[in-house]
Amino acid sequence: MSIVLVSISRNPEQWVSTLKEKNAALDIQVYPDVERAEDVEFAISWKHPKGVYQNYPNLKVIASMGAGVNHILKDDNLPEGVKVTRIVDDQLTKDMSYFVLLQCLAVSRNLFQHLQDQATKTWKVKSYQTPENTSVGIMGYGVLGQAAGQVLKANGFQVCGYANSSKTVDGITVYGADELDSFLKNTQILVCLLPVTSETKGILTLELFRKLKPNAYLINVARGEHLVESDLISALDQDIIAGASLDVFQEEPLPESHPFWSHPKIQITPHIASMTDPESVANQLLENYRRMQNGESLMNEVDESKGY
Amino acid sequence: MSIVLVSISRNPEQWVSTLKEKNAALDIQVYPDVERAEDVEFAISWKHPKGVYQNYPNLKVIASMGAGVNHILKDDNLPEGVKVTRIVDDQLTKDMSYFVLLQCLAVSRNLFQHLQDQATKTWKVKSYQTPENTSVGIMGYGVLGQAAGQVLKANGFQVCGYANSSKTVDGITVYGADELDSFLKNTQILVCLLPVTSETKGILTLELFRKLKPNAYLINVARGEHLVESDLISALDQDIIAGASLDVFQEEPLPESHPFWSHPKIQITPHIASMTDPESVANQLLENYRRMQNGESLMNEVDESKGY
Repeated sequence: MSIVLVSISRNPEQWVSTLKEKNAALDIQVYPDVERAEDVEFAISWKHPKGVYQNYPNLKVIASMGAGVNHILKDDNLPEGVKVTRIVDDQLTKDMSYFVLLQCLAVSRNLFQHLQDQATKTWKVKSYQTPENTSVGIMGYGVLGQAAGQVLKANGFQVCGYANSSKTVDGITVYGADELDSFLKNTQILVCLLPVTSETKGILTLELFRKLKPNAYLINVARGEHLVESDLISALDQDIIAGASLDVFQEEPLPESHPFWSHPKIQITPHIASMTDPESVANQLLENYRRMQNGESLMNEVDESKGY
Repeated sequence: MSIVLVSISRNPEQWVSTLKEKNAALDIQVYPDVERAEDVEFAISWKHPKGVYQNYPNLKVIASMGAGVNHILKDDNLPEGVKVTRIVDDQLTKDMSYFVLLQCLAVSRNLFQHLQDQATKTWKVKSYQTPENTSVGIMGYGVLGQAAGQVLKANGFQVCGYANSSKTVDGITVYGADELDSFLKNTQILVCLLPVTSETKGILTLELFRKLKPNAYLINVARGEHLVESDLISALDQDIIAGASLDVFQEEPLPESHPFWSHPKIQITPHIASMTDPESVANQLLENYRRMQNGESLMNEVDESKGY
């Protein structure tokens, strides 16, 4: 009985040592150096090479190292019947919430313009918005969306959400899938926290940006696939929206030739809104490994038909 | 009975119209066009020309348009016995708190470095600090300091304060004047919210910066007079502290030739941490005008011996 760790872009040694600290007896093989493929029942995975999981005939579970699982599900050659799990980590959730709060405060206080003014030694006082006068709309109202909504609300922002079905969560109005226009009409700062599914890929279009409140701003902290990149450039250049903070991109690292880097209305961060810490998620991975061994139901199992 | 409005740098017409909306019968003269100096009993004041209040023989009250009164008290030729008041405005206080929160979140999440990396098209992931792992020390623990402390604490930051006397305010430890070294030793992000007094002028020195935690950061949202500007440059250039966000300066607007503008470790905003809105403070000014006329005690009267 063995665990395979499949991660090209993340530091596998750190993961192995963290997991071994919790349980020194674990049999962990690190891809691509897998000598006993038939022993593998559990995979810990981040952006694996497509088709690789066909090599493990006894694989039962693929556990994502992070909150996202699109990197797993987009592989059309996953073994039949394998279960997929994601990380739901309180610290990841909190980190995301505070990153969203930081971005919303920065927008309402014109921080990005002031820093650009500094570059040209320009002293330019601009009136600001209070949180109470700033409406934030959160697309995707799952664990991360709800947590960000509560933090924003606690700090005075007007918050609404958008999800599959309309509801009210802790005093926050959440619009349903058929109410997208109403949601956008009430939103000045649009925060994208959607999962990647066939419905949400490419959802952030010029047409959508046109429906937002005047002086709108985009914060994308979900995945690059949500955004039609050329539409964002058009929306900014035509003053349809005022600016964008992007933490995620279709290609990461963002290629040096990409026009986003030098666009004056785009703020770029290198996918750091919330970063998985092996230490804080190791217990969760090992608990699911134990549950699998005992035939118990898994924590945070993904519904593959929904994609999250 | 007349009010004189003395403000060179702020828009006097907007103040007059806001006050007149509240009470059309008010007799308001705008400096320097004062024809009946002997009628003036109440001054609404922002950065007046020194000595000007000697011209009003019946002046009883000088009301600052903002939270600060140093611009009034530093005039050695104030008339004997005149009372000085300041604005204590809930919105000013809230605005300041959220600006401080914005800056502390930006520091903990490396936002300023990421934006500088963008300028050179550099994708550089840096691990961040959570609020729980970030200690903020607030120098000056009056109305503004306490409000900022509560907002920071509510968002998870470790907070302590520094004031004349040691105390505990709503669960936050406040060090007294004789405990400055202990306060600094516990502080990574130093927020200056002190009033300007003879003790606090030039308090932010190289020697003080040396006593902060490693990787410290300065946020000055009080007054430019608190900071020894050349000491800040030395501290940054010698890596004694990591960076500074400055909203206030000894000379404002900051002169184009000033080295702060182009220093890579300094973030500049043009004195916008909290801006007085005439509408929201007009009622407070007029209430004190009424109290003065009726011989009642004034709101937010300044103790000139303390300077705040």
